[in-house]
Order: sequence, then structure tokens, then C-alpha cells
Amino acid sequence: MSLSPYQQLEQEFRRLHAFRGALSLLRWDAAVMMPRGSADVRGEQLAALETEHHALLTTPKVARLLERAEAGASQLEDWSIANLREMRRQRDHAIATPPSLIARLAKATARAEVFWVEAKKANDFKVFAPHLEEVVHLVRDKAALLGQARGLAPYDALVDVFTPGISTADIDSIFKALSRKLPGLINEAIEVQAPHAPLSLTGKFTVARQRALSVEVLKALGFPFDRGRLDESEHPFTEGVPGDIRVTTRFDVADPFTGLLGAVHETGHAMYDLGLPTQWRDQPVGRDRGLALEESQSLLFEMNLCRSRAFVRYLRPLLEKHLQVSGPEWDEQNLYRHLVRVRRSLIRMDADELTYPAHIMLRYELERKILEGALPVADLPEAWNAGMDQRLGIRPANDVEGCLQDIHWAVGHFGYFPSYALGAVIAAQLNEALRAARPTLDAEIAAGQFGGVMEWLRDNVHGVGARLPPKELIKEATGKPLSAAAYLRYLESKYLEAP
Amino acid sequence: MSLSPYQQLEQEFRRLHAFRGALSLLRWDAAVMMPRGSADVRGEQLAALETEHHALLTTPKVARLLERAEAGASQLEDWSIANLREMRRQRDHAIATPPSLIARLAKATARAEVFWVEAKKANDFKVFAPHLEEVVHLVRDKAALLGQARGLAPYDALVDVFTPGISTADIDSIFKALSRKLPGLINEAIEVQAPHAPLSLTGKFTVARQRALSVEVLKALGFPFDRGRLDESEHPFTEGVPGDIRVTTRFDVADPFTGLLGAVHETGHAMYDLGLPTQWRDQPVGRDRGLALEESQSLLFEMNLCRSRAFVRYLRPLLEKHLQVSGPEWDEQNLYRHLVRVRRSLIRMDADELTYPAHIMLRYELERKILEGALPVADLPEAWNAGMDQRLGIRPANDVEGCLQDIHWAVGHFGYFPSYALGAVIAAQLNEALRAARPTLDAEIAAGQFGGVMEWLRDNVHGVGARLPPKELIKEATGKPLSAAAYLRYLESKYLEAP
Repeated sequence: MSLSPYQQLEQEFRRLHAFRGALSLLRWDAAVMMPRGSADVRGEQLAALETEHHALLTTPKVARLLERAEAGASQLEDWSIANLREMRRQRDHAIATPPSLIARLAKATARAEVFWVEAKKANDFKVFAPHLEEVVHLVRDKAALLGQARGLAPYDALVDVFTPGISTADIDSIFKALSRKLPGLINEAIEVQAPHAPLSLTGKFTVARQRALSVEVLKALGFPFDRGRLDESEHPFTEGVPGDIRVTTRFDVADPFTGLLGAVHETGHAMYDLGLPTQWRDQPVGRDRGLALEESQSLLFEMNLCRSRAFVRYLRPLLEKHLQVSGPEWDEQNLYRHLVRVRRSLIRMDADELTYPAHIMLRYELERKILEGALPVADLPEAWNAGMDQRLGIRPANDVEGCLQDIHWAVGHFGYFPSYALGAVIAAQLNEALRAARPTLDAEIAAGQFGGVMEWLRDNVHGVGARLPPKELIKEATGKPLSAAAYLRYLESKYLEAP
Repeated sequence: MSLSPYQQLEQEFRRLHAFRGALSLLRWDAAVMMPRGSADVRGEQLAALETEHHALLTTPKVARLLERAEAGASQLEDWSIANLREMRRQRDHAIATPPSLIARLAKATARAEVFWVEAKKANDFKVFAPHLEEVVHLVRDKAALLGQARGLAPYDALVDVFTPGISTADIDSIFKALSRKLPGLINEAIEVQAPHAPLSLTGKFTVARQRALSVEVLKALGFPFDRGRLDESEHPFTEGVPGDIRVTTRFDVADPFTGLLGAVHETGHAMYDLGLPTQWRDQPVGRDRGLALEESQSLLFEMNLCRSRAFVRYLRPLLEKHLQVSGPEWDEQNLYRHLVRVRRSLIRMDADELTYPAHIMLRYELERKILEGALPVADLPEAWNAGMDQRLGIRPANDVEGCLQDIHWAVGHFGYFPSYALGAVIAAQLNEALRAARPTLDAEIAAGQFGGVMEWLRDNVHGVGARLPPKELIKEATGKPLSAAAYLRYLESKYLEAP
């Protein structure tokens, strides 16, 4: 019995899925297990597999099968039609970025990353500038090619790679609402919190104890340790595929929260991946719905569910048990004060929930101007410092705490930053719908019971896979179009109240 | 400037090398890190990469390039000619085993492995027999196809996959010499050792302490921890590529030697891989010279160098330091008695150096008969038990300690076993030449200095890569043709002396 063109495509993409899983493991190993002298060897392996993945996706055979399957799409069921749409999207992206451009970008970003590290050491943006310029040049080419292939403006095409179906217009509208409200909210929150500074949590909390604490919390969240791992790496991340999912975190012996909340954040990603529709797991439609949705899941876990009074109620006895701590600084109120503390700071990675969007909006504004040619790379430091001053009222004393702090641009990730803030916005909108559907949610969290949360997320988000575009998915899950409204309501009720 | 056919082939095989490295990491991870529920996912990834590796090796393009490069081979230098020969060999092997046969073998061996485990649990060979029969059937097909492609008899073709250039005639001649001498030697050794039974080494030696001991010894051997790792797994193994080499061992808290000598054995493999000619690392001629040579390196380290009085002199203070042991049972003589103890035993994996070849020769005799059809699978248990009785004078009470003990046949590895014994023979011949070249070797070992050994091995074995066929390599390295003579001299001088 011969297979239909659509069925043959499913076979091709099953193979590509296995390649992606192998690539993911190679990256995980590089960050967690690999000896430090083996980076060159790993680089060659990753390049060989990525090249082959690209080649398999862009064969004339796949193009022919896509055309034939699309011609007969009316006979397919909904999931298969959506799968075909996602196959087309992947293939268009791949064909729009020819191997020669990928190779040049790989070389330019590898070099730029080296000089980014050097520039940080020397605290001198000029060391980095010419290499960033080279990357910007190539990213512009990529954006133009992707835009042509997808019928989008260049910057929209870059966003489309990370979060399909969300446009610059969507982002602008949301960021405008945030820019209007957040500065006032930050002022008020800092004022409200001023008389309630938390007592310090002093002590030395060994990695082994913190790990045991994280494992107990992750088990409560539903993380499957028989099909997943928790390890340590310099920055927390999630790799792997459903069936073998791997999260990492970074423990700080002087701080009991960094490691735990890093692990919880990544578990949000992992539970999303694990909840993807099982029967479509090895197909494009069975994948997550892009970076903003991914980030909404990690932030929902970390911010909305766990930086809460209810979670602190669950957590306090676990801290006593695993870290063997006691005293007034470990009571629920003081712990909560730590978790919601608002402070204006220069470094995005250290920012709290309320000031974080300002960091993102600045980067979004600057990267668009750079790509459009409206901001020369050489003028970036001054534009950055002025932007921080305007948005948060603080000014970097140097480029290390200014425009050199993030790796993203060095490695060519333009169009990536907005997804962090969009993720927070989506998380809050989902959180509102989730709480409406489960009025007992706080009691469940306080009891360490997350089964109900997972069920709701599986039904409304995870199980949808990539069947719907993100905005439709959000509308179906929450009953409302994507907007900043729920996010602002959430921030106001959380941060205008004395902690 | 366009590349010559030979240069284009080098490019193709560079890519295949990267694939092999990725596959090796996936296998390492499966045995060392992977959560136990993730085997299916990993199986799909391995199958996808192996299929692609096979496809890349068997494209018409590679065939055309090989023909054109071979036509112009007279203009190439020696290493390139040898590289071309090894490319041809790899491609002939691949083309002779069509994907359909590989797929059927993969399925049959996966099933046979499951029923092998079941049969061991039930202590009943009949549970395994029909599945082994299926595997034998397919391996026969594979041997016939490989034999046709390489102009070899079927069983020789299987040996050729693992250890190219060594024939059944070579093996028969060596095994005949061993069969004539070893039974008497075993009797005498047991008699000589009888009055010198070692004192027991009692205690509980934590994994952390044993690991620290192994790391110190491996560092002395030259293992590069900045481009390699030591981990734990159920059975010791080596995976990876030069530049990222990974050895494992299994620690037994009741026994200080299992873990250490497992790690030393694997480090023999690792140092071979690390010593391969650097500039040919990603080419077929830069690979090891097959299983028998690989095994000669691990056995040279474990048996010839480390199960020795000189090594015990180096080791004793390290045992005191890391395991914090003392007393008469930890003196050099008693430790040495443990390392050379001869005992007739039923299980190959537990066998000592002197009785080990008997286990291999039995398997070699039986697997040849099975493949030729001279021994029906159903009669294997009785033939096994009779063979053990004849060769070692002991008889298994059941199939678990008889023909069910090894996994090799279940997973289709016929023609593999001889390399274990050949490895020991080659190791002894290299050991003799090494000691002739370095008369101070024992003093170096006693001082924990292995730089001279490594230099000799690099010059005479590792650095040759696959430039020469194994027998030529051995002749060049030792000045003598491959034979059992040095091995028998070595065993006699070691085991006829009171320990």
C-alpha cells in the first residue's frame, strides 16, 4: 500500500524530529557535562547535524510532497491541515535562509561572541562594535529573505521565527499600554514596600540540600524524574524532547531562592513540552507554539503561581525540612516580602517582575532602530544609557552594566527579546482565566497540589500544540483577545498592596 | 579552485565522522545519564542518525568519487592511499548491508535481547532459542552479503567488520597453540598458588574515595580530564572521539580493585583513541585499527602493566591515602596475590587472565558451528556445557551460568568474541617489545611514570591509525609476525612463579 503525499511528509518530519532531539541532547551535554576542552569537537558535530537537518528539510522531494499534499488538503482532518501549515512554515524558513548565509552567520556570531566576552572584560564597547556591525549586516539580509518568503516586513519576519503570528503592531500596542502604566506603578510599589523591608536570610545552604528541596518541589509540580533530569549549569535552561526532558538551574549557596525558582521556571517549560499532544509529538503541529507561549508557561509557574502568598505557605515547612532553618526571618510574611521586592536595577537578569518589562522594551526599541539603520551601532551605548534613564530613572556607569550585558545580539538573536515581555503578558492573562476556572487555586497551591493547574493547562494550552496560531490559542484559552489588561490588573493587585 | 575527487571524499567523510561522534555521545548518555523511561525516544534518535549515516555513505556520489579517486591514486601520498582504501572498505561494508536487512536485524535483535533477559530470569534457554534462531538466520544473510562484497568466506567477513585483515586461519593457528599449552599451565599455576592464598581485603570503600583513587591513577596514565570524563555505568565502556573521550567504570564498595581496574582498562582504549594521528582524526585512516587492536591496548594497561609487582608498588601508598587502609593484608605481596589469583570459573566476565582464553575459544568454536549450520541452536546448551567441561573441567549447573551469560549473540555480534583473546595475544607481544625498548619500565611503573610507555605506544601503535593492516602494524611495532609465542612466554613467567 503506497503512502499519500501527506503521509510521506509525516515520515520525513518524524526523521527531522529525531534529528532535533539529537541536537538538543548535544547542546544539553555541552552546557552540563562536556569537558571544557571539547568545544571544537562539539561545534563540528552540531554543525554537521544542523546542516543535514537543513538539507533534509529543503530537498526538492519535500517541496513536491508539500505541493501535492496542499492540493489535496481539503480531504485531511483539522490536525493534519494544521500540521501541513506548520510543515510549510518550517520549510519556507529553511529555504529562505540558504546554507551560505547560515554559514556566514555562524562564523560571524562565533567571532562576535568571542569579542563580546573580550569587550566585557575590557569594559569597552568599541572592542565589540565592528563584530556586532557584521552580525547586524547579516541579520538584515536574513530578515529581508525571510520577509520575502513569508510576506512579512523584515523585523516581523524575525519575530515570526520565534513567535509565529505575532506582529510588530501587536507588540507595539501592548508595549504602549505598559509604557503608560508601569512607571507610575513602579513608583507606587516602591513607596508601598518601603516600610516593609524584609529581614535578611543569612546562612550557607549547600547545593545538596537545595537540590533536595528543588526535587521535592518539582515532583509536586509533576516533573517526571523517570523521563527527565534536573542538573546544574551556568544559566538555567530546558533541553530535550517530551519523553526525555532536561531542566537545569544554578544554585547559589548564599541564596535559597535563585536555584529553586530557576528550576521552577524551567519546569514551566518542561511541563509545556510534556503536555504537548502525544500522538503528534514527532510532527510540527505537536510542537510548542513558539517562544512567547513557552515563556508564558515558565513565567506562569515562577511569577504567578510561585511568587505568591499561597506558595510561601507550602514552601515554608520545606525550607525548614531541607535547609534546616528557623527564626523570624523564615516566617511566611518575610519570605513573601523577599519574593516580591521591587528595586530599580541596571541588569535585566537581576530585575524583579515589575521592572523587568522596562528592560525588554528598551531592547526592542533599540534593536528595531539598529536593524532599520536609524541607530548606528557606534551610537548604541549612549542610546542605551539614555533609554535606561528615561524608563527607569537610572543610568549605567559603564557598558558592562549597559549595552554589553546580554549575549543575544552577539549570537544574532534579533526579534527574540519581545517574547520575554509577551510571555509575562500572556501568563497573566492565562492566570486570570485559570483562577476563574479554579476558585480554590490558592488553597491547592498552599497544599502543594498542582494537579488541577496541570489539567487546566493541558486542556487549554499544552494539548493544543501548534494547531492554532498563538493569538487564537490565547483567545480560546481565556475567552479574550490578547491584551495587556490582565497583566496590568495582576501587577496592580500584587504590587500596590503592602507585602 | 575546484576540489579533486579525493579531496571531495575527505569532505564527505569529515561529515560522517561528525555523525559518528554524535552517535557515540547519544550512546554514552543512554548508558550514563539518560532517565530510565527515555529508551524509546533515544532509540528513535539513534535509528535516525544511523540511517542517515548509512545513506550518506552509500550515495551514488560517493561511489563515483571513489572510482575517480582510485583511478588517480598513484598521484596520492601514502596516507591518502591508505585513507582511500579505508573509505572503500567502509563503503563496501555499508553497501553490502542494505537498509532493509539492517532494519530486520535491528528488530530481531531488539526482540532477542528482551527474550534473552526473560530467559535468564526464567533460567530457561528455550525462551530465548527461537529468537536467537531468527538472529542467526539474519546474521547468516549478512555474512554472505559481506563475504561477497569483500571476497571473503562468510565468517571471515564478520571478523573483518570488527578486526580487518585477520582471518579464520590466523585465529585457528593462534587458538591451536593456546589450546595445547593453557590447560597444563592452568593446572600448574593453581598448584603453585595454592600455598599462597591471599588474605581477604575487608572493608567498605565508598564510591567517592574509589573515584578519587581512580582519578589519580588515570591522571598518572595521562588521561586528559579537560577533554574527557570518568563516569559510572553498569558495565565499563569507552565512547566519544579524540577531543572528547569518555570512559566509565563500575565501583563495588566491597572491592577496591573492580572499579579501578575497569577504569584503567577503559583508559587503555581512551589513550589509543587520543594517540591516533591528529591530522587524520576525522578520516577513516585516522581511526583505530579494529577491535583486536583496541582490546590489546586496554589489556596491555590492565593486565601487562597494572596487574604487576611494579604497579602494586606504585598503588599501595595510593590505597592508604585514598581508602585509608592499613594492615598486613594491604602489603605489596598480598595485593599482588589478589591481582594474579587463578581460579576456574563459569562466568567469562569474572574470569582471571589465565583462564579467560578458554571462555573465548569455546564461544568461537560454537558460533562458527552455529553459523555453518553444524550445530542447531536447540543443541547449544549441551554443546556449551560439554565444551566447558572439556576446556576447564567444570560444568554449568544451568544455562544462566552457561550459554545464557553473554548478550553478544542476542544483539547479533558474531565474529566479535575472538577479538578479546586476540587482544590479549597482541598485548603480550607489544609488552615484550616495549620492555625490550625500555629496560627501566618496571621502575617507571613503580614510580607512577607512564610517559615513556605512552610515547612508545604513540610511535608504534596509536600514531599509525589505520594506515597499515593489523598484522603489518604488529610486525612493524614488534619486529615479529603475530603469534601466540610472546603471550605464552608472558603467561608462563607470570603464573609459574609463586606470587
